[in-house]
Amino acid sequence: MSVTTKATIASFGGKLLKLSHNASTTGCEMAFNLFLPPQATTNATDKVPLLIYLSGLTCTPDNGSEKGFFQHGASKHGIAILYPDTSPRGVNIEGEDDSYDFGSGAGFYVDATASPWSSNYKMYSYITDELPRTVFSAFSQVDSTCVSITGHSMGGHGALTLFLKNPGKYKSCSAFAPIANPLKAPWGEKAFKGYFGEKDWQSKGKEHDATELVKGWKGPLDILIDVGTGDNFYKQGQLLPENLAKAAKEAGVDSGLNIRFQDGYDHSYYTMASFSDDHVQHAAKYLFT
Amino acid sequence: MSVTTKATIASFGGKLLKLSHNASTTGCEMAFNLFLPPQATTNATDKVPLLIYLSGLTCTPDNGSEKGFFQHGASKHGIAILYPDTSPRGVNIEGEDDSYDFGSGAGFYVDATASPWSSNYKMYSYITDELPRTVFSAFSQVDSTCVSITGHSMGGHGALTLFLKNPGKYKSCSAFAPIANPLKAPWGEKAFKGYFGEKDWQSKGKEHDATELVKGWKGPLDILIDVGTGDNFYKQGQLLPENLAKAAKEAGVDSGLNIRFQDGYDHSYYTMASFSDDHVQHAAKYLFT
Repeated sequence: MSVTTKATIASFGGKLLKLSHNASTTGCEMAFNLFLPPQATTNATDKVPLLIYLSGLTCTPDNGSEKGFFQHGASKHGIAILYPDTSPRGVNIEGEDDSYDFGSGAGFYVDATASPWSSNYKMYSYITDELPRTVFSAFSQVDSTCVSITGHSMGGHGALTLFLKNPGKYKSCSAFAPIANPLKAPWGEKAFKGYFGEKDWQSKGKEHDATELVKGWKGPLDILIDVGTGDNFYKQGQLLPENLAKAAKEAGVDSGLNIRFQDGYDHSYYTMASFSDDHVQHAAKYLFT
Repeated sequence: MSVTTKATIASFGGKLLKLSHNASTTGCEMAFNLFLPPQATTNATDKVPLLIYLSGLTCTPDNGSEKGFFQHGASKHGIAILYPDTSPRGVNIEGEDDSYDFGSGAGFYVDATASPWSSNYKMYSYITDELPRTVFSAFSQVDSTCVSITGHSMGGHGALTLFLKNPGKYKSCSAFAPIANPLKAPWGEKAFKGYFGEKDWQSKGKEHDATELVKGWKGPLDILIDVGTGDNFYKQGQLLPENLAKAAKEAGVDSGLNIRFQDGYDHSYYTMASFSDDHVQHAAKYLFT
């Protein structure tokens, strides 16, 4: 559970820590970044809540830290931000670096069951269990009982599915341009076939598909989602937020599902930077009540 | 004067345009980015003022656009931001790509007089004349009479020297971690010797050194400068803001020179993102009066 500090960077009155640890879940050294807001770094006695930001395909912990602008809102509210990596790295599985959308940088926040990926590609367990345990153990000023989740693209899929699969675990959820129905999208099909195998990908995939999971959701559902109308992956049918909206409506839990179609915005971090204040505010509403 | 649009990206309610033009000053295609705030993109009849952001060593127009968060403040105030490149590119001068701190990505905002650089490395003329003329010609919603300047590191040197050499041209000036006395700093000495020649580098350099130029400044001087105390280049004596402060004081023009030493901040864009709102606010004070 020991954490190595690679860098400490002042940011918005707090500290952005570049960290790593030897993760048993994934069997390799995993990098992650943690933003501690000023409220957690200046003789604070109160604990600060945590917002987990899950990145999209190809990203490392640095993309969101440098370009997402989450620290701006987090500093104001007093929220720590956790930026995990998107897959195991360098675990010497044949083909791990062959595609941008499978293997390295593309763990899809599932526990792989198909060989050879099942040995290391356990991002679901890593993100829901080992990484937060490691953070809470190393940083006592972060409140383990007060955690929200958000993410972008593949990370939006991660945020939605982790939230929907674990009622009560996260105080709130939001997403930018999420892969909202991976069973019906080329990215999702490729990932699920690879990580679960040709035989099981649809049945296992159902357990990791927000549009399927929302059908079983009980109680109110207050999720903020931003999708840009200029997002090429949205246009290509990789995101399918309408399918999530339809399923939520049919399940009668759509009253709090706020999908905002942002005029002309694309799939890039420019979109996230423009709306991250809103997503931090959405989390704050639940983290401080 | 024609401008090619490479991309139009929605950002903070406005548009970040990735552009290029064939520049006669530098004899090559030059990339630049222009952020048009919402006030300039939605049937606006009023013109918007312009803030020029000059980047540091190795940067392209994208570094500031993606990681500086100037768009956040600029969107609020209604200010366009111009992100120029830092040198000519691909002009086939022997050795142009050999160093990170000389040649490509390191134009130092001077007009070179020494061969072979004098043929293309005319960044002073390019930034003070050709590029803004190109922008005002192509984007009528940008007000050519209302321009401020800021910059980082080598670009902070650029902002300070262009402001001090051209009284009245820019409404205001600010800088992040500027090379404030290049004649006394290893980066500046190398650049000036290369661009002006071994014989002339000190005399010519005096015309492009903020600490020298401030000695001749008449009237009030209201400049905001942020320098991080954790900035390794500050510690190594590349920036020397104290020399600028001393010279301004001796010239009796230091009353408005606000050098803020930011505790623990480094030389990176994390620092800029943390304080860019303040620098946009500083510019707005002058751009809207």
